[in-house]
Amino acid sequence: MRLSQFHLHTSKETPAEAEIVSHKLMLKAGMIRKLAAGLYTWSPLGLRVLRKVERAVREEMNASGAIEVLMPSVQPRELWEETGRWEKFGGQLLKIQDRKEAWYCYGPTHEEVITDFARQELSSYKQLPVNFYQIQTKFRDEIRPRFGVMRAREFLMKDAYSFHLSDEDLGVEYKNMYDTYGRIFTRLGLKFRAVSADSGAIGGAVSHEFHVLAESGEDALAFHSGSDYAANVELAQAAEPAPRAAASEAMRKVDTPTQKTCEDVAALMGIALQRTVKSVAIIGADADGNAQFVLALVRGDHVVNEIKLSKLAGLGEYRLATEAEIVAHLGSEPGFLGPVAPRKAIRVIADRSVAAMADFVVGANEAGYHLAGINWGRDLAEPDVVADIRNVVEGDIAPDGEGTIGLARGIEVGHVFQLGRKYAEAMKLTVLDANGKAATPAMGCYGIGVSRIVAAAIEQNNDDNGIIWPEAMAPWQAVVCVINPKGDATVAQAAQDLYAELNAAGIETALDDRGLRPGAMFADMELIGIPHRIVVSERGLASGTFEYRHRRASEAENLDRAALLARLGK
Amino acid sequence: MRLSQFHLHTSKETPAEAEIVSHKLMLKAGMIRKLAAGLYTWSPLGLRVLRKVERAVREEMNASGAIEVLMPSVQPRELWEETGRWEKFGGQLLKIQDRKEAWYCYGPTHEEVITDFARQELSSYKQLPVNFYQIQTKFRDEIRPRFGVMRAREFLMKDAYSFHLSDEDLGVEYKNMYDTYGRIFTRLGLKFRAVSADSGAIGGAVSHEFHVLAESGEDALAFHSGSDYAANVELAQAAEPAPRAAASEAMRKVDTPTQKTCEDVAALMGIALQRTVKSVAIIGADADGNAQFVLALVRGDHVVNEIKLSKLAGLGEYRLATEAEIVAHLGSEPGFLGPVAPRKAIRVIADRSVAAMADFVVGANEAGYHLAGINWGRDLAEPDVVADIRNVVEGDIAPDGEGTIGLARGIEVGHVFQLGRKYAEAMKLTVLDANGKAATPAMGCYGIGVSRIVAAAIEQNNDDNGIIWPEAMAPWQAVVCVINPKGDATVAQAAQDLYAELNAAGIETALDDRGLRPGAMFADMELIGIPHRIVVSERGLASGTFEYRHRRASEAENLDRAALLARLGK
Repeated sequence: MRLSQFHLHTSKETPAEAEIVSHKLMLKAGMIRKLAAGLYTWSPLGLRVLRKVERAVREEMNASGAIEVLMPSVQPRELWEETGRWEKFGGQLLKIQDRKEAWYCYGPTHEEVITDFARQELSSYKQLPVNFYQIQTKFRDEIRPRFGVMRAREFLMKDAYSFHLSDEDLGVEYKNMYDTYGRIFTRLGLKFRAVSADSGAIGGAVSHEFHVLAESGEDALAFHSGSDYAANVELAQAAEPAPRAAASEAMRKVDTPTQKTCEDVAALMGIALQRTVKSVAIIGADADGNAQFVLALVRGDHVVNEIKLSKLAGLGEYRLATEAEIVAHLGSEPGFLGPVAPRKAIRVIADRSVAAMADFVVGANEAGYHLAGINWGRDLAEPDVVADIRNVVEGDIAPDGEGTIGLARGIEVGHVFQLGRKYAEAMKLTVLDANGKAATPAMGCYGIGVSRIVAAAIEQNNDDNGIIWPEAMAPWQAVVCVINPKGDATVAQAAQDLYAELNAAGIETALDDRGLRPGAMFADMELIGIPHRIVVSERGLASGTFEYRHRRASEAENLDRAALLARLGK
Repeated sequence: MRLSQFHLHTSKETPAEAEIVSHKLMLKAGMIRKLAAGLYTWSPLGLRVLRKVERAVREEMNASGAIEVLMPSVQPRELWEETGRWEKFGGQLLKIQDRKEAWYCYGPTHEEVITDFARQELSSYKQLPVNFYQIQTKFRDEIRPRFGVMRAREFLMKDAYSFHLSDEDLGVEYKNMYDTYGRIFTRLGLKFRAVSADSGAIGGAVSHEFHVLAESGEDALAFHSGSDYAANVELAQAAEPAPRAAASEAMRKVDTPTQKTCEDVAALMGIALQRTVKSVAIIGADADGNAQFVLALVRGDHVVNEIKLSKLAGLGEYRLATEAEIVAHLGSEPGFLGPVAPRKAIRVIADRSVAAMADFVVGANEAGYHLAGINWGRDLAEPDVVADIRNVVEGDIAPDGEGTIGLARGIEVGHVFQLGRKYAEAMKLTVLDANGKAATPAMGCYGIGVSRIVAAAIEQNNDDNGIIWPEAMAPWQAVVCVINPKGDATVAQAAQDLYAELNAAGIETALDDRGLRPGAMFADMELIGIPHRIVVSERGLASGTFEYRHRRASEAENLDRAALLARLGK
């Protein structure tokens, strides 16, 4: 591609509306333009990158045996009512009424549609296993679309759905997809990690997320230094704490007039934060389904993990307690709460690390006071429930006792689920098995955020000068820059010859023949992140060399033709 | 592709809901499955064909210098209000309200979005000319979606939009796109014609439609036998008629008690239909914009062309007259109307062929009577307007006098427009010209119905056994059929070797290793329209031959390897 014939439109300005580096750089490089909140047009430059990702995903999916289909983006309400998701999916579901006042949605995902397709297509176990995928436009009506294409409303996704006669077969395909995802992200040149994940609203028992690692990532990931285990912090297990020590202090009341947080109390008392206990007041349900006041306790330096908490009995749909409920049960305003001597009966759920504490500090259920020297069984009853209800933290002992937990941040770009029979049962999908009996297939589903990968790759690969594309995602692998293309015909011709030669050798190369000054031209090529830059100049030609610089190199080097081709891997 | 690993799902049943052959065959071949009215999922087989079309379009557009972008499908109302189309576009525009109650539409076309993109991207004449295109999903809320993907609501379209400093530049790119479209349809192996077209609601002065020729086509096209001229019947000019003959009959009243149509009157009177005149009562506007009763006259064997009529002064937004208006102006019920002696003043617009008639028959403006022997200037005043207001018919003399007009039917698959400055002006798009002055660019727009081409190709290419794909659109060029793959290992191996060899030679080949009986296997391959079928059998191998049959051939032939490869063009 000659850039004089291409619509390249970079900007020196850093756009004010962009909060994260990928959004800033995509706007500066002119890869995307905003149409409306969460809606972006992909410019010629941006689309080249998006298509690279799309192609890698498609080729690897095909190689893995998945078969491509294309489903409509507009989906009828009736299907979503069969699975109950028309109501349950929530505000992200963009509902649409057509001219006949029939309801549809702009598909945020396609479980219903593929299951309906399968009802029409699949009738025999002989057609299984099968894995259908598509690369298609989706819409999620984000309440606060932001970060450019990272959290856009309309986006490009690869979604695959597999059907199996047995759970074992589902497991085999799940592993196949897990491995395929690894090949896709490796091929794209990204540093990534697969982590155990909560399967959330999609449902199903087993799921893994694939994260591109980047400091700016929204998700916290936990790694074990001593094993392959990695999990989203939402799920990562904390280790069993050391046994509880014996009580050594007496309970005493401490004056904490304005100290409402564990941090403030510990600072005032001059003790470690680890000796305080945080009390979180929530409303769950008792065994009969009646509202029940619950105090969830974690150590002062820990954070409650809402997902772990919600998996405990009676807490499936818990909510935070109101101030009135707190006063009614504990007799105190928030900031001074604790499990000792509540006004009314409450349920106490202690994180395992809290249950293992002795001589700890809690709120006194009286404004301006805390209690210190608290011990289980002496100052208050043992907790009703002891469970792992906290987020792991950096340096935690790993649950297997081998090594410690490290934290990293990631951007979720893929997610694989074992759905089981949830959708197939709801939508009455059956096939005849080998004995001629109707059987409900097990399903898997496998998503990749194609457009999001572009932004995630930039979050992982950039510097002050712009984007640094991995080779497989770069709009072009190499660019031949011509100094003063209209000046010296020999230089222009040599550049053109090299450009043609590199393309013929299979190196996708652009020719920057726009006639910009060298500084502006080089700044553009760095901003848009082309891995290999070759400069053709009069001086270089005189000495039979080209100036070569890799996007990550600090210096350029002068190479003759053979050395240049070798450097480009040919 | 081994068909045992592919999801092929044909049906012997002819689906009851399908009215046209392409819809029937796409369902029988299992290319598409209906999700809801006008919404179809493309199966693996269907998608292979769709992608072939998409690829041909993309490659030819790229070769022509157009640059690919990708715009959102969801578009904000504000942009459509800038051009006034939010109201004007009508019921096909699918309007959507998001969770914040802001209005959007699912884009049926992208003039507004690309012009907004251009406002952000284009600032200088140096960036022009430029032609942006996309291949993207569109939605038109058809009042009666039908014919499968031929008139679906959600469909795949290639739309391109070009920007130019001058009308001359627009003309150059228009010609470039016109030629590119010719290359695309030629490459796809389709018989097609480009015809002059009315530009309709999109606007602009010059436009051509590209039609795939098929007897089942919805559009009537007019060709001149003596020249290259072709036009949609909506636009095709009728020739100047021969001069009017002298009057030879006296006016007389004819008793036509129940004869309300020209056909019935001519039959009753025993005269040629060409001697009768049809009077169509409409309401237009006079020079002051007041409603005006108009009688439009065409010969009894002709049909009024509404588009030609609407281009006459005062008829831009004409409508049919109500019965009350007719009675008030002519004094008669419909069926007996005519231009002679109306009750109130009316405007008479005569087709040129009517103005050239003598001794003709019209309604008497009295129920049960017609008038014969009518002559202009004697029995009534000369017409207020004489114009070409009829559809051409087969056998008409061509306007240039060379040869005659022939009619054919076509399916519109492409449309190119010179939009001029309509959108650029409405949306205030300007660039600086060479003198530093703001200039409004001229625009062109160029559409291709990518998914519709698949159906149109089938309408043109099919027989009783199924689809007959042109090579470039076939899911596979060739199929190697194995007789009894699990029986004779030598046969299975030979088939596999041939399959591998053909693919290596660049012939996209499927291996039918599903183990079906020969009759069922051959019927499937004919139904799905694979151009070249090769059968590997024990008997053939014994004589060193393969059984070869082209989809259009009536007989199979036995060919040795060399002859087979030669037949496949290798």
